[in-house]
Amino acid sequence: MAVAEEAEGMAVLCRPATEVPEHVITMDDTLAIARDLHRDHPDLELVLRLISHTGVSKRHLIQPVERTLSHPGFEERNLLFTSEAKKRVPPVVRRALDHAGLTASEIDLIVFVSCTGFSMPSLTAWLINELGFDPHTRQLPIAQLGCAAGGAAINRAHDFCLAYPGRHALVVACEFCSLCYQPTDLGVGQLLSNGLFGDAVAAAVVRGENEGYGVRLERNGSYLIPHTEEWISYAVRSTGFHFQLDKRVPGTMEPLAPVLVELAEQQQWKASKLDFYVVHAGGPRILDDLGTFLDVPREAFRHSRATLTEYGNIASAVVLDALGRLFEEGKALDEHRGILAGFGPGITAEVALGTWTDRRRNRPM
Amino acid sequence: MAVAEEAEGMAVLCRPATEVPEHVITMDDTLAIARDLHRDHPDLELVLRLISHTGVSKRHLIQPVERTLSHPGFEERNLLFTSEAKKRVPPVVRRALDHAGLTASEIDLIVFVSCTGFSMPSLTAWLINELGFDPHTRQLPIAQLGCAAGGAAINRAHDFCLAYPGRHALVVACEFCSLCYQPTDLGVGQLLSNGLFGDAVAAAVVRGENEGYGVRLERNGSYLIPHTEEWISYAVRSTGFHFQLDKRVPGTMEPLAPVLVELAEQQQWKASKLDFYVVHAGGPRILDDLGTFLDVPREAFRHSRATLTEYGNIASAVVLDALGRLFEEGKALDEHRGILAGFGPGITAEVALGTWTDRRRNRPM
Repeated sequence: MAVAEEAEGMAVLCRPATEVPEHVITMDDTLAIARDLHRDHPDLELVLRLISHTGVSKRHLIQPVERTLSHPGFEERNLLFTSEAKKRVPPVVRRALDHAGLTASEIDLIVFVSCTGFSMPSLTAWLINELGFDPHTRQLPIAQLGCAAGGAAINRAHDFCLAYPGRHALVVACEFCSLCYQPTDLGVGQLLSNGLFGDAVAAAVVRGENEGYGVRLERNGSYLIPHTEEWISYAVRSTGFHFQLDKRVPGTMEPLAPVLVELAEQQQWKASKLDFYVVHAGGPRILDDLGTFLDVPREAFRHSRATLTEYGNIASAVVLDALGRLFEEGKALDEHRGILAGFGPGITAEVALGTWTDRRRNRPM
Repeated sequence: MAVAEEAEGMAVLCRPATEVPEHVITMDDTLAIARDLHRDHPDLELVLRLISHTGVSKRHLIQPVERTLSHPGFEERNLLFTSEAKKRVPPVVRRALDHAGLTASEIDLIVFVSCTGFSMPSLTAWLINELGFDPHTRQLPIAQLGCAAGGAAINRAHDFCLAYPGRHALVVACEFCSLCYQPTDLGVGQLLSNGLFGDAVAAAVVRGENEGYGVRLERNGSYLIPHTEEWISYAVRSTGFHFQLDKRVPGTMEPLAPVLVELAEQQQWKASKLDFYVVHAGGPRILDDLGTFLDVPREAFRHSRATLTEYGNIASAVVLDALGRLFEEGKALDEHRGILAGFGPGITAEVALGTWTDRRRNRPM
């Protein structure tokens, strides 16, 4: 009975695919631009110091930096979001399907998350039409969970596989953060954000059966830090989404670390003694603090740090990209235990526990 | 074993609560305003005829009609959406919880759907903070499924209860369609929409156990009519969301009726012989056509028609309000079979099958 239950509730998060755009902006570029644009800003030195401490060495943008810095209007930005997504999402989805050994027609749910462009209908409809998904595929677009949406997408896909054993879900995170650059926003948090966020598309399949290669999802949980809903937010204006970051945000790992510990305890695991960690890389302090509060070595978050260094904060796509790096590293072993965590507005944490599994019929694929 | 399985997968959609705002606009008001504002419009007579054929006798708005007709900018509208939602959603949520015999702290998932105002974080965070929900409550905000989101919300809540037997979900639909009125949009479809949509808040609980009073959810499905993603859409501009309605939309019941028939067949039910029907009332033609293609008497859609007549098209809130009218009528009997269906952009149908159940411990409540 226990075995049957386990097989029924099985969901394996397969190897993600990530693509970043071709236009590169280095840390040096970023600092030079900030110096140039804000030479009279009273807090320029603070901003430059904050940016240089992010640990971001480069970011990738959907447009050359000069075009990124001009604001053509909310309408044109949303049209650009859609046209760029239509160009950049399909190859990533195809690679994620390949990694899972599935075709589009075998997918039953698409969770599409993005907080950096808005459309109705969401791109789920277009994807179904263009990439050969079944018209009966369930569509779950999420636009309002920000950076936490990567974790939320994995967790809702997991829930779906629990509800419908044997069905499969596709998770897509499409974040073109550069389309939320607002030239008139001059707060310190906003100028820091201008040096932090990058563009990327990531996708992964959650296979709803006891087969596959990846992270067998065991349990998930969500947590909202009470009364912090204004700490990360958008002001929604005629010029689009204006990112607002409260200076208390970097300190949120102190209340969130116990949430990870608590979820692990429900699984009879110790959060400080896991084999792998895939956490949202909002910024360097978040990774440092979480490591301290969880009492894990710096090395534990190497994949999240690599994402931050090479791509910047790519919002909901971070957890998928960092997970992709864990696959690439190739050191995870069958039955290794790990945790995935996305953090974002609310302040919300979306956390998942999983066990590394390799039950490919003919391994390696 | 069969019984145990049934108990595990149980989810009962409880009695919804709906509230409409205090500002009323009648059909006569609407026609007079259209005549006045568009006296030189080449298609004025067509527009007036289309509006008068909607069957909408009145609608309710969050502001007096004069203020509704002026556009204060996208930013102010979104702020108004949030402040009005914070005022109007809590009493509806409390009533929905009362109907289900639950407190806020017993809810495990909040599905919050709205396509008429945008915020990040979504109002789920505020609701959790203000109404006594547990900080661990999962948040699922959906902004991009339009009128289909009412059905989608019920279906995702159902899926959640299948995944986690014994857990409960709250569904909230908050639609202030009047905040999407665009004075500069003069297409026939847009002028018709100005006479069709209304404001409302609705909520309902899906109880994840074999108890309660309402619709025991048996099965759900989604369907996207191929290559129709541009038939209902928003143009997202500096002035906000501009509703775009293709003239082919009223004809979509011909391809969608078979979807309802097919889902019913999977349950060994006949879609033409059900005991109750709760369908999205997008407009009169949709209800007429669906009745024809399903071969059901006009009477079958009386609750959807009542919603349309008294409130107009209240987007994702329609299915919840029409279901509320079924409860109010008091004629549904234990084991009656029925169907719920939301239709919206994509073109997407979100359909659910359910059986009327009354397993209150001390009935009537």
